[in-house]
Amino acid sequence: MENRDKVMETRAVNAIRVLSADAIQKAKSGHPGLPLGAAAMGFELWAHHMKFNPVDLEWEDRDRFVLSAGHGSMLLYALMNLFGWNLGIEDIRQFRQLDSETPGHPEYRNPLGVEATTGPLGAGIAMGVGMAAAEAHLAAVFNKPDYKIVDHRTYVLCGDGCMMEGISSEAMSLAGTWKLDKLTLLYDANRITIEGSIDGVFTEDVGKRAEAFGFKVLDVPDGNDLEAIGRALDAAKADESAPYFIIVHTEIGYGCPAKQGTAKSHGEPLGEENVRALKEFLGWPQDKDFYVPQDIYEYCGSVIRERAGAMEEWRDLFSAYRKAYPEMAELWDKYHSYDEALSLLKEADNATPSEKADATRSYSGKVLNKLKDRFPNLMGGSADLAPSVKTEMTGEAYFGKECPEGRNVRFGVREMAMTGIANGLLLHGGIRSFVSTFFVFSDYLKPMARLAAIMRLPQILVLSHDSIGVGEDGPTHEPVEHLCTLRSIPNFRVFRPAGRAEVEAAWYAAMASRETPTALILTRQKVDPVPDDGKKALRGAYVIRESKGTPEYILIATGSEVALALKAQARLEDEGFRVRVVSMPCMELFEDQSEEYKESVLPSSIRKRVAIEALSGFGWERYTGLDGAVISINRFGKSAPADVLFSYFGFTVDHVIDVLKRL
Amino acid sequence: MENRDKVMETRAVNAIRVLSADAIQKAKSGHPGLPLGAAAMGFELWAHHMKFNPVDLEWEDRDRFVLSAGHGSMLLYALMNLFGWNLGIEDIRQFRQLDSETPGHPEYRNPLGVEATTGPLGAGIAMGVGMAAAEAHLAAVFNKPDYKIVDHRTYVLCGDGCMMEGISSEAMSLAGTWKLDKLTLLYDANRITIEGSIDGVFTEDVGKRAEAFGFKVLDVPDGNDLEAIGRALDAAKADESAPYFIIVHTEIGYGCPAKQGTAKSHGEPLGEENVRALKEFLGWPQDKDFYVPQDIYEYCGSVIRERAGAMEEWRDLFSAYRKAYPEMAELWDKYHSYDEALSLLKEADNATPSEKADATRSYSGKVLNKLKDRFPNLMGGSADLAPSVKTEMTGEAYFGKECPEGRNVRFGVREMAMTGIANGLLLHGGIRSFVSTFFVFSDYLKPMARLAAIMRLPQILVLSHDSIGVGEDGPTHEPVEHLCTLRSIPNFRVFRPAGRAEVEAAWYAAMASRETPTALILTRQKVDPVPDDGKKALRGAYVIRESKGTPEYILIATGSEVALALKAQARLEDEGFRVRVVSMPCMELFEDQSEEYKESVLPSSIRKRVAIEALSGFGWERYTGLDGAVISINRFGKSAPADVLFSYFGFTVDHVIDVLKRL
Repeated sequence: MENRDKVMETRAVNAIRVLSADAIQKAKSGHPGLPLGAAAMGFELWAHHMKFNPVDLEWEDRDRFVLSAGHGSMLLYALMNLFGWNLGIEDIRQFRQLDSETPGHPEYRNPLGVEATTGPLGAGIAMGVGMAAAEAHLAAVFNKPDYKIVDHRTYVLCGDGCMMEGISSEAMSLAGTWKLDKLTLLYDANRITIEGSIDGVFTEDVGKRAEAFGFKVLDVPDGNDLEAIGRALDAAKADESAPYFIIVHTEIGYGCPAKQGTAKSHGEPLGEENVRALKEFLGWPQDKDFYVPQDIYEYCGSVIRERAGAMEEWRDLFSAYRKAYPEMAELWDKYHSYDEALSLLKEADNATPSEKADATRSYSGKVLNKLKDRFPNLMGGSADLAPSVKTEMTGEAYFGKECPEGRNVRFGVREMAMTGIANGLLLHGGIRSFVSTFFVFSDYLKPMARLAAIMRLPQILVLSHDSIGVGEDGPTHEPVEHLCTLRSIPNFRVFRPAGRAEVEAAWYAAMASRETPTALILTRQKVDPVPDDGKKALRGAYVIRESKGTPEYILIATGSEVALALKAQARLEDEGFRVRVVSMPCMELFEDQSEEYKESVLPSSIRKRVAIEALSGFGWERYTGLDGAVISINRFGKSAPADVLFSYFGFTVDHVIDVLKRL
Repeated sequence: MENRDKVMETRAVNAIRVLSADAIQKAKSGHPGLPLGAAAMGFELWAHHMKFNPVDLEWEDRDRFVLSAGHGSMLLYALMNLFGWNLGIEDIRQFRQLDSETPGHPEYRNPLGVEATTGPLGAGIAMGVGMAAAEAHLAAVFNKPDYKIVDHRTYVLCGDGCMMEGISSEAMSLAGTWKLDKLTLLYDANRITIEGSIDGVFTEDVGKRAEAFGFKVLDVPDGNDLEAIGRALDAAKADESAPYFIIVHTEIGYGCPAKQGTAKSHGEPLGEENVRALKEFLGWPQDKDFYVPQDIYEYCGSVIRERAGAMEEWRDLFSAYRKAYPEMAELWDKYHSYDEALSLLKEADNATPSEKADATRSYSGKVLNKLKDRFPNLMGGSADLAPSVKTEMTGEAYFGKECPEGRNVRFGVREMAMTGIANGLLLHGGIRSFVSTFFVFSDYLKPMARLAAIMRLPQILVLSHDSIGVGEDGPTHEPVEHLCTLRSIPNFRVFRPAGRAEVEAAWYAAMASRETPTALILTRQKVDPVPDDGKKALRGAYVIRESKGTPEYILIATGSEVALALKAQARLEDEGFRVRVVSMPCMELFEDQSEEYKESVLPSSIRKRVAIEALSGFGWERYTGLDGAVISINRFGKSAPADVLFSYFGFTVDHVIDVLKRL
């Protein structure tokens, strides 16, 4: 920008610092170090580079900004306030208070304009990579000569902590492989973490690591030098060959004489005296709280005005595009609509059981390959296990620099970044995503699955090889506790389908979900056909085969154990026991049903209940109570052929019958 | 080695290939790609570099070898067989069969000599870093001029998958920071993973990344060139300035004409025809299975004989050391003994409740700082949160290149590698370890906690900030489902202590545990004093305050909710309700008690039970059954002051009383 007002800009940067210090002081809680140290890079980016318009914070072609170092939330809130993002000083006064617009860490869309929930360090980098991948993909699909309707950048501000977390390496390696040139990481290199200087704990050459991943690296020696930061951002924008990693050397807590440059400024209020000293140092009135002179607001409004106009131009362009390429505009609408997905719920009625044995992962692969044609915006892949987890969309290309229109994604052996990136695809908008790995490795992606649930993203996780059915690969590859792990996540659905119809229902429920992630838990081994019912599966649990008489017992099972329960039932009924079998593919959906429905499936009068699931029994007492029994595995698995293991661990008709009779 | 027999060595390398192919073919399951491709580097390392003696595979000063790419287990088993490690051909014939000595992935000490359970990719690198750190630490503590009693190396064989996983970056960054010069990574760079060539998914410059972390990097262009591999290993040994990263370019599945160089050789048997073709290509008799000519065994025995003598020399040296430094030898014995730890269990009897409110993390910090004096081999730290989680051992130095005798460890924001490294400390022997982070970030370390449980390592995890008591930091920092996650891991204990005495008991139980990891779940906020009992806490649950009459109700609580339960009890008793309060700091220990004891605490006749825990209620029905109630949090937390949140989520005396009365 030619005519930047340097004095005014320094004051605006300081306004960020003062607002941050005041808010944290008033909340008696928060992290001043980052907002004070990184105020300049935040300001420079928002004032002179980022494409946005406060009038519509969800404008599809806006640039994305992710504060990966989420503890520095006040930097974001101060920027939103200065640049007119509908976040008033009154909101900032409510920093970290119940149900305010300014929670302790940035929360997705709380308020609107926050692009992602951050706080778990490094996650923002993966989400940023996902956003940039979404942009590249959508640009490849939709842009036409003279109609660059998808053309925006993704900026991620990260700190030393982000760079230490393994997810940053995983995500940056993919960003480099995919050459996501519209992705820019701003690395707030202050060399301080909670335990002090990074000297004894983080001596690596971070820039060199970024180069190894395929980033181009720039270095800004003085983090308060707006123009130098601006030049680096300009260089990144001008280069279409690679993502950029801009190292900005800052001083944590800058402006607070007693604490700057030390860990003391990181995670607690500066203290009233130090806030006054900060204001004095920055030339701010010491007697005013939450004070931003009006001329600073006016200046901030003025510098973004020109770029803000881009939104109106884009809207005009899109109108013209709609006329020139009506079928593409229709496709665009389809990409951004939920109608098709919602219609799937009805189709579960038509899902039919299989007549022969097969693995539920195979059913899943077939459903996915039907869905891919109806949902051209479905994009996903696995952590290097596509042939095993059956997630390749056949005939579709693989996403990459040479082929950004590809919808299959190879994530490599990087479960955590995979899921963070897929969250970024959803956050970007326009894309539906899925990820996949062996169920046992859901442990690796769990922090990002949790973030999906917190952000209310309908992420889909296809998790195969779901029990000791894994067999010979042994205990490291056999999930045990993993169903408990996922079932206990709030706002998260876990389907463990028993057969083809339930697999279809699970996929349909996952696709139709608007705000809740769904995990599909699938077998490696073939399972015998069961009379499963897609429509009923959507209620979470249902009577899959009733007793011939009034039931005295209930067998409850999921997934591969439903067939076992049915076999046991057949023998028990022959012996005169009256046994109902309930298939419970999704506990969470069952819990959502009416008390009446739940009572109809599991009448409270029938206390002789046995649950069967070839994983940890933890949590099953919800349905079996103090008088029932659970046939489960509460130890680690073993390496042996799957059928040997099922016998060894007691998943036999004989054992089920024994346990039931003992009640 | 001057007089190596090149022809014989090539045959020995091929013996590894043939054994691997035969074993996998017989098992109809396994991963031939790595053993065939990496056979030469395995052989060269074991034949000419690694210090070991088959007579005592647990000799303290042996070199350690970790097969991080654990799916290549047959490489390890074949090497063990060739070099006389008590693993016969009959064992290899049982590859992947129930309870054999040759499970699908290497399992720690199954058989003896396997240094670590591997399979989850990259984990072996972290464990190797831990082993090398243990060596550096013990050498600094115990070695004396002329008495280098600790002087061995750690070798880790890793593949492309290991390098993609984030844990490799985390662990290598620390290895570089700590300059662990006795650590050598052998990178089996075959450029193939399950989904095919790494070209589209892993294009980074791996060597440059390793350099950025502080490794020195060597490149062996031909992975079958034993002497070139040997020269690289020699160079690594000669350099005391840095860990080494040796890139060995190999061809996956080498020797199998139909599959070599492709993903098809990775994870399934070659097929009988291809096994014959392999044997033909390698000049092996095609009609024999599991065939290793006797002269190969003899050669392998002869090449290691000289180095094997090092063990006897070391034993002589140690005898002399014991005489010269009797107090050091005594310390050595102490480091390798469990007596002191076991004695702690009795001392729990003397643990006393606090009389004033404090955070359980503070109690924990004080216990740790007492234990540190009694256990000079206690070593650990946190993922950059020591001031918050109270895990600094005051007055102790920090571990690093300049100070290898330091017992405090700064792991940086690398929870996963932290725990993998700490597992390595335990695997090495001589050291007790602990790790720490915020409870919510236990998600990040969980895969390594699971490995600790599988390996039966008494790892200790100090997890603070254990509920919505975190307050203002909000949902990303407030654990909800995490207790379920940990409680459902087999062979794992979770303590959530209510007060000072229970914290002591938890630490004592953790230290005295020989084969089970323990997590201590601690509050950030102060909790009111309760009449907790250390001795009783070791039974997992106990009546902390009995009703004034025969109890009709039971309140069960853990941690910070015990004080709440006691307050509710007081009011209820005043109103004429007969209420017992049970503190249940450790479900797993309670489950281990006799039926009689369990019945005495939770009589089956009393069905009116309310469990109170400010996290997910999933799993509590084990104790409350179908007739009780659970006061818990089955949604994500919020950002607000902690006391506001406890009220908001219903953790008030009034609400507890309401719920109980509604039963």
